[in-house]
Order: sequence, then C-alpha cells, then structure tokens
Amino acid sequence: MRITPNLIASLTGGTVEGDGEIELTGFGKIEEAGKGCITFIANPKYSHFIHTTEASAVLVNADFDAGAEVRPTLIRVRDAYAALAELLTAFESMKPQPRGVEEPVHVGEGTELPEDCYIGAFAYIGRGVKLGSGVRIYPQCYIGDGCEIGEGTVLRAGVRVYEGCRIGSRCIVHSGAVIGADGFGFAPKGEIYEKIPQIGNVVIEDDVEIGANTCIDRATFGHTRVGRGTKLDNLIQVAHNVELGQNNVFAAQTGIAGSTRIGHSNRVGGQCGFAGHISVGDHNEFGAQSGIPNSVGDGKRLIGYPAVEARQFAKTQVYLKRLESLFAKK
Amino acid sequence: MRITPNLIASLTGGTVEGDGEIELTGFGKIEEAGKGCITFIANPKYSHFIHTTEASAVLVNADFDAGAEVRPTLIRVRDAYAALAELLTAFESMKPQPRGVEEPVHVGEGTELPEDCYIGAFAYIGRGVKLGSGVRIYPQCYIGDGCEIGEGTVLRAGVRVYEGCRIGSRCIVHSGAVIGADGFGFAPKGEIYEKIPQIGNVVIEDDVEIGANTCIDRATFGHTRVGRGTKLDNLIQVAHNVELGQNNVFAAQTGIAGSTRIGHSNRVGGQCGFAGHISVGDHNEFGAQSGIPNSVGDGKRLIGYPAVEARQFAKTQVYLKRLESLFAKK
Amino acid sequence: MRITPNLIASLTGGTVEGDGEIELTGFGKIEEAGKGCITFIANPKYSHFIHTTEASAVLVNADFDAGAEVRPTLIRVRDAYAALAELLTAFESMKPQPRGVEEPVHVGEGTELPEDCYIGAFAYIGRGVKLGSGVRIYPQCYIGDGCEIGEGTVLRAGVRVYEGCRIGSRCIVHSGAVIGADGFGFAPKGEIYEKIPQIGNVVIEDDVEIGANTCIDRATFGHTRVGRGTKLDNLIQVAHNVELGQNNVFAAQTGIAGSTRIGHSNRVGGQCGFAGHISVGDHNEFGAQSGIPNSVGDGKRLIGYPAVEARQFAKTQVYLKRLESLFAKK
Repeated sequence: MRITPNLIASLTGGTVEGDGEIELTGFGKIEEAGKGCITFIANPKYSHFIHTTEASAVLVNADFDAGAEVRPTLIRVRDAYAALAELLTAFESMKPQPRGVEEPVHVGEGTELPEDCYIGAFAYIGRGVKLGSGVRIYPQCYIGDGCEIGEGTVLRAGVRVYEGCRIGSRCIVHSGAVIGADGFGFAPKGEIYEKIPQIGNVVIEDDVEIGANTCIDRATFGHTRVGRGTKLDNLIQVAHNVELGQNNVFAAQTGIAGSTRIGHSNRVGGQCGFAGHISVGDHNEFGAQSGIPNSVGDGKRLIGYPAVEARQFAKTQVYLKRLESLFAKK
Repeated sequence: MRITPNLIASLTGGTVEGDGEIELTGFGKIEEAGKGCITFIANPKYSHFIHTTEASAVLVNADFDAGAEVRPTLIRVRDAYAALAELLTAFESMKPQPRGVEEPVHVGEGTELPEDCYIGAFAYIGRGVKLGSGVRIYPQCYIGDGCEIGEGTVLRAGVRVYEGCRIGSRCIVHSGAVIGADGFGFAPKGEIYEKIPQIGNVVIEDDVEIGANTCIDRATFGHTRVGRGTKLDNLIQVAHNVELGQNNVFAAQTGIAGSTRIGHSNRVGGQCGFAGHISVGDHNEFGAQSGIPNSVGDGKRLIGYPAVEARQFAKTQVYLKRLESLFAKK
Repeated sequence: MRITPNLIASLTGGTVEGDGEIELTGFGKIEEAGKGCITFIANPKYSHFIHTTEASAVLVNADFDAGAEVRPTLIRVRDAYAALAELLTAFESMKPQPRGVEEPVHVGEGTELPEDCYIGAFAYIGRGVKLGSGVRIYPQCYIGDGCEIGEGTVLRAGVRVYEGCRIGSRCIVHSGAVIGADGFGFAPKGEIYEKIPQIGNVVIEDDVEIGANTCIDRATFGHTRVGRGTKLDNLIQVAHNVELGQNNVFAAQTGIAGSTRIGHSNRVGGQCGFAGHISVGDHNEFGAQSGIPNSVGDGKRLIGYPAVEARQFAKTQVYLKRLESLFAKK
C-alpha cells in the first residue's frame, strides 16, 4: 500500500495543502523527521519547526497558522494529536503480535488457556485463573490463584498480580507493576506494630493502562478500584481501598493514600500526593508535586504544597519574591 | 465452627451489646458490609456509618458513642483496630499456605532447602544460601549467593536479593522489592564519574515488612540496616549505609539518603525525603511530603519543605494567605 | 599477596605517614573498621573519627589535618574518595564473575550468544538480539526482540528491556529497572483518552549506570536518550523523548517529564521533578525535592518548589520565619 497525504487526509477527515501524492515511509518528531516522514504539531511550542523540518508532511490543527509559506505538505485536521493517535494505532495494528504458549510455563489446576492467547516463557499462572480471549501474558509474569483477566488485556514482562484480583478487558499493564500486594495496615500494640491482614482485592475496570513499576495495593476488605479508562503512569502508588473513577490521567510517581476516592476525568501531574480518607470530585487539574491534604470539589485547578488555586499559588510566588522589600523597610 | 458476636467478644476480651448469637459469615468495610458481616470503626470519620451500615456486627472502641440506638450488634473492645488485626490474623492463619518445591527452580551448590519450605517455580537461589524453616519463596524470586533468610519469612513473587544479604525471621517482602543493589557511590574524576564498588551488604532484622518495589541498597562497607519490627511501604528508597532502628513506620515513596541514621518508633508520612548523613531520634512524626535536611531529636511533630514544627507550619500557611494584605497596604 | 600501606601508596600515588608495612586485610567504615582494616576520610564530617578509629590505615586527602598525632597509618593522596574507588575496583576485579549459560533460558531466533557471556537461568532473550562480548545477563531478565546490548554490560536479575532498545557498553542496570516501556501519551477524545502508540525506542550510551526499579520510557518517535557516563539512582522516572546528556548524576526518585532535554555534568538531588518540554544546560546543581518548571541555563545552584537560586531560597526561609513579626506589628 502506498501511503500519501491524500490517503491520510481521507482516513482522518482532513484537508491537504501542498503535494497530496508524495509517498510517506515513516513517522518522526518534527525536529528530527527526514524526507519521506510524516510528523505533527499539536503543542504551539513546536510551531516554529514548520519552517525548518525536513519532513514531507505535517499533521496540524485546522486553525494552524504557519505565518508564511511552508515546504512540507500540510494535512489540516480537527485535532492533530488525536489524528496522530489514530494513524499510529492503525500502523501498530498491522504489526504481528506474539501468539501461542511458550515453554516452560506454570499453569495451575483449573486454569484454562484460551486458544488465541500468548503466554510467554517462565510465566506463572496460578489455580483457577480466568483468562479472556486474546490475552497476552508476556514472559515472567505472575498471576496468583483465582485472578480474572479480561479479553485482549496485555501484561508485559514481569507483571505481578496477587491472588484474587480482577483486571478488565483491553487493559495494558507494563513491566514490574504490582497489583494486589498487601495494603499498609498495622495496629500499634505498645511499641510493636501488628499486621492487619488485607483480605480484599484489586479490581481494575476495562481500558485501563498501568505504568511500569506502579503499585496498586489490595483492600483491607472489599476492593481497591481503578475505574474504566483511567491511565496511570510509572512508579505510582495506589494504596488500599482507594477508589479511582473513570478517565482520570495520573502522571508518574504520584501517590494516593488509603481509602481516598477520586472521581472522573481528573488530570494529575507528576509526583503529587493525595492524603488518605479524602474525596476528590471530577474534572480537576493538579499541578506537578502538589500535596492535597483535604477533599476537593469539581473543576478546580490546584497546585502547591499544600495545594491552592493555581492563581493564588502564582500570586504567592510573586509576594515571596518581594518579601525582602518588606523587611528592608523596617 | 459457628462464628458469633459472643465468640468474638470472648476472643478479643470485649463486651456485646445486642444479639450475641447471630451467625457471622464475613468481613466488610462499614459502608459496604452486608448482612452477616462483621465490620469495625476505629477512625471517628466513619462513626456516622453506624446508623446506615447493613453489617450485622461492629467492633468499636470501648468509649464509642453512637448518639442513638443502633441496629447492628456492637462489640466493645479496648482497641477496635487491634482487635480487628487479631481476628483477621486468626482468619488468615486458617488459610492453606503453599508448600513444597515447584519445578523448574534453580538451586545453587551448597544450598539446602528446608523440608517445610515453599519454593515457587522459576525461583533462582544461588550458592551457599541459608534458608530457615518454613520460608516461603514465591515464583520468580532471585536470591544471590551467600544470602541468609530466617525462619518463616515470606518473599512474594519476583523479589530480588543480591548476594550476601541477610533477612531475619518472620519478615514479609513484597513483589518487586530489591534488596542489596549497589549503593549510589561515584568519585568524580574530571568530568567522569568513577564507580565506587559497594562491598557491604543489607541486614534486615526480624519482623520487618517491605513493600512492593521498595529498594534497599547495599552498604559501601559494612551494613545498610533495617531494625526489628520496622515497616516499609511501597516504592521507598533506602540508600547505602542507612540505619533504621526498630518499629518505625514509613509510608510509600519516602526516600532516605545515604548514611542517615533513624532511631526507633518514628512515623513517617508518604513521599518524605531525608537528607544524607543526618541523625533522627525516636518517636517523631513527619507529615507527608516533608523534606528533612538536618538532624532531628526525639518526639517532634514536623512537616514541610524544609520541615518545621507542625504548629509553625500551620501558622506560616495562614500568614502566606494574608501576604496580599501586606502588599496592598503599601 | 601481602597488602600494606606502602603498596597502596604506590598504587594510588600517595605518601605514607606511620607504619607502612603492617598487613591490611579488609575495608571498613571509619567508625566501624577494626584492626587490619583500611578506611578513608573524604567528608570532613567524619574527620574526628581519626582519633577513635581502630582501623590500621586511613586514606586521607593531601591537605588533611588531624590536629594532633594519630595512631593509624595515614596514606595521603590527592583525592581520598577517588583513591578508594580505584582500590575497591581493583579488589572487585579479582572476584570471580559468573560465566556460561544456565538452564533453562529462552533464546529467540537469530540471536547469538557470545562465547564469554553469562546468561542466568529463566532469562528471556527475544529474536534478533545483538549481545556484545562479555555481557552478563542475570537470571530472570527480559530482553525484547531486536535489542542491542554492548560489550561488558551487566543486567542484574529481573531487568526488563522492551523490543528495539539499545544499551551501550560497560553499562550496569540494576534489578527491576524497566527500559523502553510505552511513553505516557494519550489524546483526549471527548471524555475518553485514546492511546498514542509509542513507536520510538530508548538509547542508552556507554558507561551508564541505572538504579533498581528505575523506568525509562520509549519515545513516541525517535529516541529517549541517556548520554554517556550518566548515572541514575533507584526509582527514577525518565519519560518519553527525554534526552539526558553526558556525566549527569541523578539521585533517587527524581522524575523528568516528557521531551525535556538536560545537558551535561548536572548534579540532581533526590525526589526532584523536571517539567516537560524544558531545556536544562550544563553544570547545574539541584537541591533535593526541587521542582523545576522552566528552562535553566548553565552553572546554577537551584533549590525549592518552584526552584530558585539557593541563596534566594535560604533568604526566603529566613523571612518566612519572621513573617509573624510583620503581622504582629499591624
């Protein structure tokens, strides 16, 4: 198949400016893409590269203004980033995926492997595990007794899922993630801490992605839950009995303490910390490294330690720089 | 065995208010527990659920005041959380635990497997490793040459212990934890950094719990040490030559830089950072996300970046909010 | 071989004060080293131990002043820490290293194992992987299809390298590190987030060390890059399309958001966070827990959240403590 700007425009509902029939042979970042490549501009920070890129075609937003004539073919679409996602997904879906059962693997009693799955070598699957069709369990994964993994879900190499946890369909879990380790619960008894066994589990709904080395602890009772479509980056901590709603995005190294509930469609920067036993609504944005000690409503933009409204934070930073003048006056 | 409030009261030294003879069939969180469940209230934040829970019995502290008559049977105990721990531990101890040696495993020369151990498939145990009776080494663990693991200690799937480290008895180490990786030591030599080989080890005393994906680095010389009964949550960094005393509790994502010594019975919130080469006493509390640049005595309550007394921190937050008024006046 | 202060002085270009012919049998920390040990003083915080140590010999900097006569033999060198590195490296190089291929391992089609390598049991090496001579792949590592690993590089137990990534020569990667997991890229589509396939890779140049459980994500397109001689501690997050230059040192739990470029010879404290799409120059120092929201030039000393010049930070802390007086006055 010959891939051209015209073809891509027809796939993404875009319009072409420039040569629509040149052949495209790969993708590239705008500052590095060479001849034959298609690239994109979604973040205005990168707009100026339109004049220097060697790419042959560029996906841009409908209202993109280059300011002057440009050499590459432009493909204008409603949302350049979303169009890129579609294109790359189409491209990826053509790649062959691993299938079949490699040797050796350990499969416990009462576990049946679906015919169209992939089970990589050195994977360990416990007893009574339910696997949906098309699951891909990469090498060296561990799935404890009684777990359930939905259709089409992918566990990359070395994921660990403790006994009794449930993962939905079309999820992706990256290497080193640990699902269902014991929540951190201890009862003080004099100077000693006595372990509180954690007899709940973790439930991950459909279409969730979980980053490398992220940890989601099992509940004391009941469920720690990650709602449908929520995306967790790497090295995140989700403590016991946390409940995350749908379509949230959490950047790397964020931590959420025990029993906190977070609603839907929140965007959380990296290295944030949420206190335990609080409640967060929907459609909030949290700046990186924020500390959130108390419950939060809906639609806020918060940042800081402790987190305040983003405007308030910016003002305080200005005042802090001017503090010296106050003391100088005295 | 028929489990009833009267039975539980006799096991935990409690007193029963309401029907002591109903049959209990499970545990649950107070807001989710259904008929037949026993639940608990330890945190006053959850007291109001006493009026809406469907649980059949509730463990409460001796001085719990519901404010009105309640439907569930109450079991009053000295410490509801501790009583819960005891009950769950009894419950857990009845569960069958894995035993025996699965295939394939790698066992090095000079290592003997105790008769009552569990060694999961794909585990790698090096040469000259000493394993105490009743150890449970889950699948895919790695134990380097010359390590020692004490009686009854459990290593969940995929724990890595580098050569020469020692872990005490009755410890629990969760998946993905790395014990004994090289400390981060380099000597600058012009622009280049030259590695300082780390020839010490890690010593973990008895009754320690280590969370998923937590890292404890080996010492340059001598030992990095975790004292008896200390509990580390997930994704914690313990650098080379750190010494942690007994019965400390560290919440997730905290980091402790090299050669720092921390005493006994400290409680440390999530995402804290301790500078290197400092000394911290006993019985301190550190709020989440605190940064501790200098040595600390005993019995303090600190929070902030850099950490200050909790009262001072609260005051400063109030003043920061009022900063605007100062500048407005000018 | 008999090891003496005279021998060590000749190896490190040092001069001996005291008995140069006593036999040395081991290394130790100055506060713990016993008779027969050699130790070192590089950090002045530890100088006072010179009067109490039981060590037989001490490496010190040329200008070290004990203030009084001391019992141990002193070996004066230009840089005590660098001399220690050399000595320990010589010592380590005498230790036998694992060699050969253990069983079982998985080796994909088109992958050849070099004759002098070590491949530990339960390692998984994909198709078409290129391994340099002398590589040591410890047990339970995963190396995806088409990866390249340079000469003499060591992957400790349980490292995961996704398909198509390249690691240079003489690198050390510690247990649980994940190289090449998908970057965190999603395009919002109404309330849903659509995954942007990450079709780039990770390129790690020569002489890099990567800590335990550290994550380096693959690029959306092109490369996420770690430059020659850069050292990353444990639990660090390097996001997609980040470019790190040469000879940087990053302490544990630091995070670098997507597409950020960092130059050469920077020193970064623990738990720092760099925003995405910024540029950092050379020879900067960042204090622990700093948040770096904007681009940075060269040769700065920054700290704080958001990071400011270290002097400014110190001043602001002083003013914050005096804030109360301003309000009291009113």
